[in-house]
Amino acid sequence: MEPYRNTELTPKERAADLLPRMTLREKVGQINQRLYGFQCYRREGSEFELTEECCAEISRWSGLGVLYGLYRADPWSGRTEENGVPPELAPKLYNLVQRRVLENSRFSIPVLMSSECPHGHQTLGSYLLPVNLAAGACFNPGLLEEAFAVCGAQMKAQGVHLGLLSVLDVLRDPRWGRSEECYGEDPYLSRILAAAAVRGCTRAGVEAVAKHLCAQGETTGGINSSAARIGPRELREIHLPPVWAVLEEGAAGLMAAYNEIDGIPCHANRWLLRDFLRDEAGFKGFVMADGTALDRLDEITGDNTLSGALALKSGIDISLWDSAFSRLEEAVQSGAVQEERLDEAVFRVLECKFRLGLFEHPYMDEDSPVRLFSAEEYPQSLEMARQSIVLLQNKDTLLPLSREARTRIAVIGPNADNLYAQLGDYTPPVPAESGCTLLQGLTSEAGSGITLEYLPGCDLFTGTESQLEAARRLAENSDLVIVCLGGSSSRFGEVRFDNNGAAIPGSSVQMDCGEGVDRADLELPDCQLRLFETLVQTGKPIIAAVIAGRPYALPSVSGNAKALLYAFYPGPWGGKALAEIIFGSTQPSGRLPVSLPRSSAQLPCWYNGKYSQKIRSYCDTDSSPLFPFGAGTGYTSFEYRDVRAEKKERGIVLSCTISNTGTSPGYAVPMIFIRWQRGTITARRKELKQFAKLRLEPGQAQILSLEISSRDLERWDPDMVLRPGTGPVLIMLEDGANLHWSGEVLY
Amino acid sequence: MEPYRNTELTPKERAADLLPRMTLREKVGQINQRLYGFQCYRREGSEFELTEECCAEISRWSGLGVLYGLYRADPWSGRTEENGVPPELAPKLYNLVQRRVLENSRFSIPVLMSSECPHGHQTLGSYLLPVNLAAGACFNPGLLEEAFAVCGAQMKAQGVHLGLLSVLDVLRDPRWGRSEECYGEDPYLSRILAAAAVRGCTRAGVEAVAKHLCAQGETTGGINSSAARIGPRELREIHLPPVWAVLEEGAAGLMAAYNEIDGIPCHANRWLLRDFLRDEAGFKGFVMADGTALDRLDEITGDNTLSGALALKSGIDISLWDSAFSRLEEAVQSGAVQEERLDEAVFRVLECKFRLGLFEHPYMDEDSPVRLFSAEEYPQSLEMARQSIVLLQNKDTLLPLSREARTRIAVIGPNADNLYAQLGDYTPPVPAESGCTLLQGLTSEAGSGITLEYLPGCDLFTGTESQLEAARRLAENSDLVIVCLGGSSSRFGEVRFDNNGAAIPGSSVQMDCGEGVDRADLELPDCQLRLFETLVQTGKPIIAAVIAGRPYALPSVSGNAKALLYAFYPGPWGGKALAEIIFGSTQPSGRLPVSLPRSSAQLPCWYNGKYSQKIRSYCDTDSSPLFPFGAGTGYTSFEYRDVRAEKKERGIVLSCTISNTGTSPGYAVPMIFIRWQRGTITARRKELKQFAKLRLEPGQAQILSLEISSRDLERWDPDMVLRPGTGPVLIMLEDGANLHWSGEVLY
Repeated sequence: MEPYRNTELTPKERAADLLPRMTLREKVGQINQRLYGFQCYRREGSEFELTEECCAEISRWSGLGVLYGLYRADPWSGRTEENGVPPELAPKLYNLVQRRVLENSRFSIPVLMSSECPHGHQTLGSYLLPVNLAAGACFNPGLLEEAFAVCGAQMKAQGVHLGLLSVLDVLRDPRWGRSEECYGEDPYLSRILAAAAVRGCTRAGVEAVAKHLCAQGETTGGINSSAARIGPRELREIHLPPVWAVLEEGAAGLMAAYNEIDGIPCHANRWLLRDFLRDEAGFKGFVMADGTALDRLDEITGDNTLSGALALKSGIDISLWDSAFSRLEEAVQSGAVQEERLDEAVFRVLECKFRLGLFEHPYMDEDSPVRLFSAEEYPQSLEMARQSIVLLQNKDTLLPLSREARTRIAVIGPNADNLYAQLGDYTPPVPAESGCTLLQGLTSEAGSGITLEYLPGCDLFTGTESQLEAARRLAENSDLVIVCLGGSSSRFGEVRFDNNGAAIPGSSVQMDCGEGVDRADLELPDCQLRLFETLVQTGKPIIAAVIAGRPYALPSVSGNAKALLYAFYPGPWGGKALAEIIFGSTQPSGRLPVSLPRSSAQLPCWYNGKYSQKIRSYCDTDSSPLFPFGAGTGYTSFEYRDVRAEKKERGIVLSCTISNTGTSPGYAVPMIFIRWQRGTITARRKELKQFAKLRLEPGQAQILSLEISSRDLERWDPDMVLRPGTGPVLIMLEDGANLHWSGEVLY
Repeated sequence: MEPYRNTELTPKERAADLLPRMTLREKVGQINQRLYGFQCYRREGSEFELTEECCAEISRWSGLGVLYGLYRADPWSGRTEENGVPPELAPKLYNLVQRRVLENSRFSIPVLMSSECPHGHQTLGSYLLPVNLAAGACFNPGLLEEAFAVCGAQMKAQGVHLGLLSVLDVLRDPRWGRSEECYGEDPYLSRILAAAAVRGCTRAGVEAVAKHLCAQGETTGGINSSAARIGPRELREIHLPPVWAVLEEGAAGLMAAYNEIDGIPCHANRWLLRDFLRDEAGFKGFVMADGTALDRLDEITGDNTLSGALALKSGIDISLWDSAFSRLEEAVQSGAVQEERLDEAVFRVLECKFRLGLFEHPYMDEDSPVRLFSAEEYPQSLEMARQSIVLLQNKDTLLPLSREARTRIAVIGPNADNLYAQLGDYTPPVPAESGCTLLQGLTSEAGSGITLEYLPGCDLFTGTESQLEAARRLAENSDLVIVCLGGSSSRFGEVRFDNNGAAIPGSSVQMDCGEGVDRADLELPDCQLRLFETLVQTGKPIIAAVIAGRPYALPSVSGNAKALLYAFYPGPWGGKALAEIIFGSTQPSGRLPVSLPRSSAQLPCWYNGKYSQKIRSYCDTDSSPLFPFGAGTGYTSFEYRDVRAEKKERGIVLSCTISNTGTSPGYAVPMIFIRWQRGTITARRKELKQFAKLRLEPGQAQILSLEISSRDLERWDPDMVLRPGTGPVLIMLEDGANLHWSGEVLY
C-alpha cells in the first residue's frame, strides 16, 4: 500500500507522500476552482447529467481540486425549484460529480465541494438566518453559534465540505452595499461573532472558509471592492481582530478580499498573505481567491499567466472562476513562479482532503431519509430575529400594543408584506410558507378586537399619487399607523449581474443594497419619505419599523414617529418577530451594532474614532450620530448597582449588580468600553471590550462579573509590536448607549 | 575673539562653538517660542512698551529663541489699526524687542521673529494675495513666485526672519475648513506651487517655514486636526511630494501638523520627523511645533514635562505657545530626554541665526522711509485674482457682456459687495480702499449704457422674506442677473477663538470656512439656495459667481445659471478681476485645482483615485464629480495638433501644436496626465504630471514641448523602495478637463 493510502499516517504525512507522485498538470488541477458548480449539471426530474464543460475540466486535470457552488440557487445562478438541487437530491448529484472525478484521477483524489453560507446555505430548502448585521444586533454569540451549527448540519447533509462564511468584514462605511454582511462597525463584536459562526459551522463537521481577508469594509466612499487606504495600525486595530479569531477557531481557509490595501491588492499582497498570515499568525490552512479576483490582476500585470504567478507567489492557494490559475503549468515552466510554491498550495488542499477522510469515504449515502430543517424543530433563526430587532425610541410608552384592545391599525409601507426584503443578498428562492412578513405576523398576533388593514403606500423606490392618497385615507380612518419602510437586497426580478454575481446598479429593480449596490445618500428613498410625511400629517400615532441591510439616516422618521424599530434584514421569520415585539409577547433586546448617521454628509461616524484631537463638530450640523453604536431599549428598565472595576492578574474585572426595576421582563445588554488615558499611540474615544446579554424578570437582580482579558488590553506600539497597555484606563459601563458607570483603573 | 564671533567661520562652526558655552536653561530658552508676540507690547501713539510677561520671559531664559507673531493683526490677536503695528513702526518695535533680548543674553544671541504669511503677511498694511486654493486655480507657478517675493519683501521690511507659509497641505476632503489653505487635491500641482511660494519668499531674504508636516488635509470626515488614517504609500504618493519640494527649495524649517497619522501624532512621530525627514530626506533645518500641539500631547503622556520630552525626542526642535518645552530643563535632568537631542535642536536655531547674519546686524534701520506695497506698483495680487477665477459654464455664450450695450443688470447676492468674504482666513484688517468687491468692480467696468442695481437678497446664512421679495422685484425689472453666492472665512465680528486662534463653531458669525470651521453639507446655505431659486423663477438670464474657500456642491446653480464663475477667495482685488472677466477685458483662464462634488454623499471624489477595481457608480447617483479637477473654460477655443509622446532618456516628452481657433485671445492650460498600465502596485485612474499655461491671440499657434521627468515616473514599490516605473503608460493630454489626445508610451 502506498503511504498516502495509509490511514494510520497523519494527513500531513499522506499529503507529503502523494504530492511528489503527481504531474505538474495534476497539481495545478488541485488548486483550480474554475467552474461555476451550478452550471455543471442538467436536471431532468430526479435525474442529473453532468455538462460537457464539467467533464472536460475533470479530464483536463485528471480530477478536480475544488468545485464551487454545485448547490447554489438564486437569480444569478438561474437555479430554481424547477431546475436546481432540492435537498433530497443533493447526495445523488454529489455522488455523480465525485464519481466522475475519482474515475478520472490516477490517485483517486476526491473533489472538495465549497458552497456559500453567509446567512444559511444558499441553496433550495435552506435554513436561512437573519443577515450578519442582524446577528451583530443580537449581541449574542451563543445563539449565533447554535444557528450556524444548524446551517452547518444542513450543508453537511447536502455534501458540502467547505462552507464559505462571510464573517471578516467590518462595516466602516454604511454606503457600502455589503454592509449587511458585516457584524457591525466594531472589531471586538466582529471578532466574537466571527468566532461563534465558525465554531458553529465546524462543530457540524463542515470546514469553514472565512471571508474576506482583509479590510474590505473600509472602502473608498463606500464603493464596492474599492481601495482601503488605511495604514497598518488601523488594519491591525479594526480589521484583523476577526481574522485572528477565526484562525483560533480552526478555520480551514480564508478567502482573500477584492480590495487593495494602501496600493497592494489583497490577492497580490505578500505581506498580508505570507508575512502576516503565515509567519506572524502561523496559519496552516489555505487561502482561496475571491471570484475572478486573480484575473483582475491583469490590470497590473497585463498578462493572465503572470497574474496567476503573482497571486501564487503572493500566497493564494486556490482560485475561484479565474483562468489565471489554469495557466500555472506555463508559469512554472517559464520560471515565473517556483514549483515549490505550487507544491505548498497543493499540499494544503491535499491535507484538507485527507483530514476530512474523503479518500476513505468519498461518497454520500443516497438512500437515507433526507434531513429537513424546519423552523419548528430549529428555533434559532426566529430567536435571532427576535433578539436582533432594535427598539430605538418609544415615546409615551406606545409600545407594546395591547392585543386585546379594540384598535383599528393601519399597516402601511413597502416592506410590510415583502418577504424577500427581509432576507438580504445571497438568498436562494424561499417558499412563501417558509417565512412570515410583518403583515402576516401582525395578523396572527393580533387579538380579535383589533382590525388590521394594509396598503403598501408606495413601492420601495417609486410611488404614485393614488397609492399615497389611499394610504392617507387608511391612516385617517385608523387609530394608529404601523409603517414599515426600508430597503432591499433582493435579486429576484430583472437584475443584471457581473461575472462574480454582484448586481450591476442601474438595472431597473427594487433594491438598494447588497453586493455591488452601493448608495451615496443614506436618507430613505424619496417616495418613502413622502409617504411618511403624508402619514405624519394625519396626526395619528405612528410606529415606524425599518427593514434594511444598512444604516439609513432617519432624522425625519425619528423626529415624528412615536416608536421606531430597526430590523437589519431579520430573515424569514423577521415579520413574526417584529409583530411579537409590537404586541409585547417578545421583549425587544437588540442593540445597534453600527451607528446610524444623521446624513451621509457626516460620514464616517463610527463610535470608535480617535481621541487625539478635541472633539469638534461641524459648523452646520452635529458630528455625532443620530443613534450611536449600542443604542437600543426595551419595555423595562434596569439599574446597575455596586459597580466596581479592578485590575486583576489576567486583566480587568468589572462587577456589578443588575436589577430589572420595571414591570416587564427584559434583556440587559451591559457593554464595557475603555479609553486609554496614556500611551505611545493615540487613544480611541471608546473601545468595546466586553459585553453580556441577560434576561431578567421584573424585580429580579443578578450579580455579574465581566472580565476584560489582558489580551484585550494589549496595544500595537509605534514600532508595531504588541505590548501590554499600561497606565490609567477609563472604564465605561453602558447599556443601550447610556452610561451607567465610569471609573479609572490603573493598569 | 571667541570663535563664535568670527564671521570667517561657517554658521555651523560658530554654532558648534557657542553651544557648549551655554547653560541648560539658556539652551532650553533658544528652542522656546512660548509667547504670543502680539501680546508682548503696548502701543501709545508711535511709542511702544514691552509687557511684563515679555520681559519676564526674556529674563527667564537670558534671551529668547524665537518670537511668534509680533506683527500679527486680526480679530483673534485683538490688534487693529488703533493698537497694532503699522508698517512704519515695525522697525522701532523690532528693535525694542531685540535690544531687550540682547541686553539679557550673555552671548548676545538675537531673537528670531516668525510671522504668518499664508496669503500675504498677516499684519497691518499687508499686501494680500488670493488664498492658496485660488493660487492652485491659476496653474501659474511663476506668477505665484513673484507674488510671494512681494510678500517676502514686505516681511523683510518689517523685520520678519521666518515666514510661516501654509504650503504643504493637500486637499483631500472639501468639508475641511482649511481647504482654502491647500493648492488643491493634486500632489504634483501642490508640489510645484509649494516650491514656487518658498522660492519667492526666500528670494526676498526671508526664511521659509513650510507647514504642515504632514497629511493634515487627509482628515477624518473633514474635521480639523483629526486623524489621517492612511498608510505609508498614500502618504508618500499624495502628501509628501510638497514636502520634498520645499526641502529642495531650501526651506529653513517645517512646521509639524496637528493631526496624527495612523495612530501617531505628527508631533510625536519619530518615523516622520527623524527617519524620514533626517535620514531619508537629509533635511538640515528645524522642525517647529504647531500652536499648543506639544501641550496636546498631554492626552497621551499625561504629563506636560513628558510631553516636551516626547516631542523633543521625536524630532521637534522649536515649540509654539506650549508650556511643555519650557519644562525641558527638568526633562533633561530627570533623564526623560538626552541633552544631546536638546543640543541638536539648539544647534539648528543658532545656525539659522548665524546664517542670517543676525549676530552682526541684529537691528533694523528705523530712519529709512517705509516701503509700501501698493496694488499699482505690485500687480501680482490682481493678476493672480484674474488667473484664478474659473469659468465653469457659459451657455449661449452669454459671457462676456458687452460694456456698451444698454442693459439693466441686477447685482444680487450676499457676496457681491463683501470685501472680507474675498479674503479668507488669516487675514488682517483691510481698509476698504485696499480692495474691490464685485459690485465695485462692475460699477467701474460698466459702460455708460449699463444700469447696475444692487441688493444682497439675503445674508450669507440667513435671509428674510422681504430681502427675498425685493431681490425678486429687482430681477424682474432687469435684463439679466448677476448673483454672487458663496461662503466666508472672515473672523471679523463676534467670533470666539480656541487657544490656537482657530474659530470655534457655533459662534453666531457669518462664516462657514477657515480653521476650525468644517462643514458637513457642501450645498450652499439654504437661504442662498432659496434666493437663487427665486431668481431662476423670474426667467431672467443668470450669471452666477461663487466666492468660497472650498468646493461647494452646486447641482441647482449649475443646472439653472447660464454662466457660472467660481472664485476661490480671490483676494482684495477679486471683485475687479471678476468684473473684468464678466465684461471681457480679462480672459478667464483658471482651472479647478479640486473636483467639485455633486454632494457630500459622494465623498471622496478626487480625480486621482485608484484604478484597482472597475469604476462603479452608486445606485442612487453618479460617483463622478459635478465638475472635475482641471475643469474651466474661456472665451475662445483651442486646437491641439501634431501630438506626439515619446520616451526620452530623461523621461517622456509630449510635443504638440496649440492654436487659438476662436476670435478672442485666451489661455490654454494643457495638462498631461498618466495612468500606469502595469506595475507591482495598483495604478491611479489619472495622475497629473506636467502642465503649462500660455496666452495665444486669435489665430496664433505655438509648438509646445512638455517633459515628464524620469523622477515623476518613479514609483514606490511594495517594499516602499522608489524605483523607475516600467512598462506601458497611458498619456492623456487634457485642457479644461477635456481629453485632446491619448496614447500609450512604452517606458
